[in-house]
Amino acid sequence: MLEICGVPFGGQSVPIIAGPCSVESESQLEAIAAALHEMDIPFLRGGLYKLRTNPDSFQGLGEDGFSIAKKISEKFNMPFTTEITDIRQIEKLHEVASIFQVGTRNMYNYDLLKELGKSPKPVLLKRAFSATYSEFLNAAEYIIAAGNENVILCERGIRTFVRETRNTFDINAIPFLKQKSGLPIVADPSHGTGLTSLVEPVALAALAAGADGLLIEVHNEPSKALSDGQQALTPVQFKSLIDKAELILKASGRELHGRA
Amino acid sequence: MLEICGVPFGGQSVPIIAGPCSVESESQLEAIAAALHEMDIPFLRGGLYKLRTNPDSFQGLGEDGFSIAKKISEKFNMPFTTEITDIRQIEKLHEVASIFQVGTRNMYNYDLLKELGKSPKPVLLKRAFSATYSEFLNAAEYIIAAGNENVILCERGIRTFVRETRNTFDINAIPFLKQKSGLPIVADPSHGTGLTSLVEPVALAALAAGADGLLIEVHNEPSKALSDGQQALTPVQFKSLIDKAELILKASGRELHGRA
Amino acid sequence: MLEICGVPFGGQSVPIIAGPCSVESESQLEAIAAALHEMDIPFLRGGLYKLRTNPDSFQGLGEDGFSIAKKISEKFNMPFTTEITDIRQIEKLHEVASIFQVGTRNMYNYDLLKELGKSPKPVLLKRAFSATYSEFLNAAEYIIAAGNENVILCERGIRTFVRETRNTFDINAIPFLKQKSGLPIVADPSHGTGLTSLVEPVALAALAAGADGLLIEVHNEPSKALSDGQQALTPVQFKSLIDKAELILKASGRELHGRA
Amino acid sequence: MLEICGVPFGGQSVPIIAGPCSVESESQLEAIAAALHEMDIPFLRGGLYKLRTNPDSFQGLGEDGFSIAKKISEKFNMPFTTEITDIRQIEKLHEVASIFQVGTRNMYNYDLLKELGKSPKPVLLKRAFSATYSEFLNAAEYIIAAGNENVILCERGIRTFVRETRNTFDINAIPFLKQKSGLPIVADPSHGTGLTSLVEPVALAALAAGADGLLIEVHNEPSKALSDGQQALTPVQFKSLIDKAELILKASGRELHGRA
Repeated sequence: MLEICGVPFGGQSVPIIAGPCSVESESQLEAIAAALHEMDIPFLRGGLYKLRTNPDSFQGLGEDGFSIAKKISEKFNMPFTTEITDIRQIEKLHEVASIFQVGTRNMYNYDLLKELGKSPKPVLLKRAFSATYSEFLNAAEYIIAAGNENVILCERGIRTFVRETRNTFDINAIPFLKQKSGLPIVADPSHGTGLTSLVEPVALAALAAGADGLLIEVHNEPSKALSDGQQALTPVQFKSLIDKAELILKASGRELHGRA
Repeated sequence: MLEICGVPFGGQSVPIIAGPCSVESESQLEAIAAALHEMDIPFLRGGLYKLRTNPDSFQGLGEDGFSIAKKISEKFNMPFTTEITDIRQIEKLHEVASIFQVGTRNMYNYDLLKELGKSPKPVLLKRAFSATYSEFLNAAEYIIAAGNENVILCERGIRTFVRETRNTFDINAIPFLKQKSGLPIVADPSHGTGLTSLVEPVALAALAAGADGLLIEVHNEPSKALSDGQQALTPVQFKSLIDKAELILKASGRELHGRA
Repeated sequence: MLEICGVPFGGQSVPIIAGPCSVESESQLEAIAAALHEMDIPFLRGGLYKLRTNPDSFQGLGEDGFSIAKKISEKFNMPFTTEITDIRQIEKLHEVASIFQVGTRNMYNYDLLKELGKSPKPVLLKRAFSATYSEFLNAAEYIIAAGNENVILCERGIRTFVRETRNTFDINAIPFLKQKSGLPIVADPSHGTGLTSLVEPVALAALAAGADGLLIEVHNEPSKALSDGQQALTPVQFKSLIDKAELILKASGRELHGRA
Repeated sequence: MLEICGVPFGGQSVPIIAGPCSVESESQLEAIAAALHEMDIPFLRGGLYKLRTNPDSFQGLGEDGFSIAKKISEKFNMPFTTEITDIRQIEKLHEVASIFQVGTRNMYNYDLLKELGKSPKPVLLKRAFSATYSEFLNAAEYIIAAGNENVILCERGIRTFVRETRNTFDINAIPFLKQKSGLPIVADPSHGTGLTSLVEPVALAALAAGADGLLIEVHNEPSKALSDGQQALTPVQFKSLIDKAELILKASGRELHGRA
């Protein structure tokens, strides 16, 4: 079974990856990590290179954020995951990331996938906006065929005609992909809904459907977030989610990692 | 709270509606109802008038099935729900149905909705193939404005680019519609997935997200079903689903109706 | 070939149906019909029964509009087409309509289609919001199988993820449906785009792709229209469209009806 | 106005880019180029690096095809356009390509777009499978903001629920994007339909809607093509298309480049 820094993925114990959409400052990341650490969350996430639709939007701290991520990740002993957007980043991100995240916009970037296939680091591969299941699994195959079997799939919502939510979380994808492949799959209800009020129920649904983990955006001050504030949970809202997640997992014979 | 034949909808106790896609014969409906009754399922479903894409497909028994539905429903004391497709059926279906189901293809049939608004019978309103949340709630409003407040919403999957499943079950819709309206909402994972292997996990997901009930296609011999066999559960598969549903509901402080 | 009041559909001569979304008053319909008549447009359209998403929106004049429609249609000798939303309207609408229009929301209303199959009047059948080509052709088959072969298909745009336009006009549908069936197909770029500025180019595109006619919303004062004003053309804008349509049709060996 | 090797884009004279999906061999490319050259087609296309869903599918000749492309392009004096999939290819492709094509899968690959923004070569940017108009224009903005204003947009069909065609060509996009931006836009009806029988009518539709050019897949033996054979035209089918295109363009006061 896939194990990352001692935490298993795809088994009875279900890990959670949480943190801000973007690393904004040391004090921001520290505040969030401290809250998550107190709840025994194993993994910290945070964007350094942000792919934003508008070239004028905040694009992430880039290399300026590396030392922040490294410092906070080590302080709380929480392995860090962040998005990689360019093959030229691989070497440098090696220092700071324990999991390479490939974002929705790069799922079809096969040249990047092939390069990550040569790395020993696990890859969290997000589904593209309108990827079929077959395309999603084939993208994973590009990484695996290049030599890296440590792939985690991530369902993060798809594009549909629905205009009231940012995306439509495809709950069918969780059992379909698990049955079709042997890969672990985590759910990102933050992007899958785009609305704070829907994150908890959809996160619980994903676990009930068999998801092997959750990827959740948590921010200490969502209203001041530089990106995606409308879908971020406060630490208090997040605590409510994981308390309920623990009960749902136990109901199906699993457990929340760190809460055995 | 809405109560149908003594069974509450929208509270802590969660009812299940199950049965075949189509009523095919007395022996078929009896075999299925007997199995469901033994599991304490409160409601029986079965199509009499089928809206089929192809005019040459089996269109349901129509009036010939009324006596079958009435007899079996009474024998097992299971209130019956069936789809109404034409305002001219209202009077006659009154005798046999305890809940009028409005199918996906008729959600925008406002003249039918207005007529059902004059009836005292509860209406289970399915979402159209590509209805936005706003359109769905407005369709319910057509019934309510005409005088009938006993409306149950039903999420049954939407049309998307995904080609591997029949529909994409929109899990976001469950919490969104509950938060936005005071109406109970049930989930139909049979149509929402179209594949037997996905019905159980998506049913559990819907309950974890807060669904107030389930609508499930059960057939004693799916491979011989005259419609939708590829998404029907056998009684044994259905028993597995409700046993797990009971645990998921308890984990969130609710219970399966009939299994208190 | 299908001929309606002497005007052929599906041949070298291409007819246009134009008029307001809703009949609002005698003076409104007269002003519009007069302008269209001067341009030799053969058919007048106008909604009497409007299916509106919101039950509180303007629902059309209903029977109050019958005498208006009849009077103006006869005055300018323009056969009238209007939407039928309920089987109980058939008999009465017979007096006023030369073509029964089945709207997007009723394409799956097979009971209505079967009743129209018993009528001698031609039926203009609009595609549902997310109907596949196969479903669309099968809906036409419900009318034909019941005895009425005078069916005209209408492509009016589909639901997609695109949020900048009301619908996405499916240009592929025009040649696909023509090749697959022997039925004439008309294009409704007003609903297919939802934006006045896109109606003309998409109308011309539909003709270049082989459409057998156009259905266009024209209003004398779009900003005061009781429905769909943002997609209606003024008579002046409409004149520009048909002048260009005439040239496009001639380029492919066809002609605009009334402009031989 | 944008001019590429002396051919203007975005004006009264409309250029066509044609050629095989993939460069397969010198004899294949020569046969196709010879046929196109005889028809006065200004630009030759052909994939060298193919992004294929399945990692086991033919991935293009890569560098082995460079000399073929260069030789044939020079022999017939047809500037060559080909897809770039990786920033590491820029320098080498400079030798062979007069236009860099960014494929559907890379529209969101902002790091690649920024690098192409530093190049003097024009970029043909294809719309992603489910990009909104706003996202598409913002992707172009990434190139322009980096210094390269020579961007041509390409509508190539979007993902919808329609299962009978490979994609749904979004005809609305042509006038919408032209009105919203000053950029030329070309249409790719080969991918926009996925079916040989629909390529011609949809190509003509795109021109009638105002497209500034066409990108068409032509193959001397479609049934033997290593990729996308089911949507390729033979030279004879292509000749029919451009003859009709010439007439449609003249009807709207434009002309086919090379056929003045």
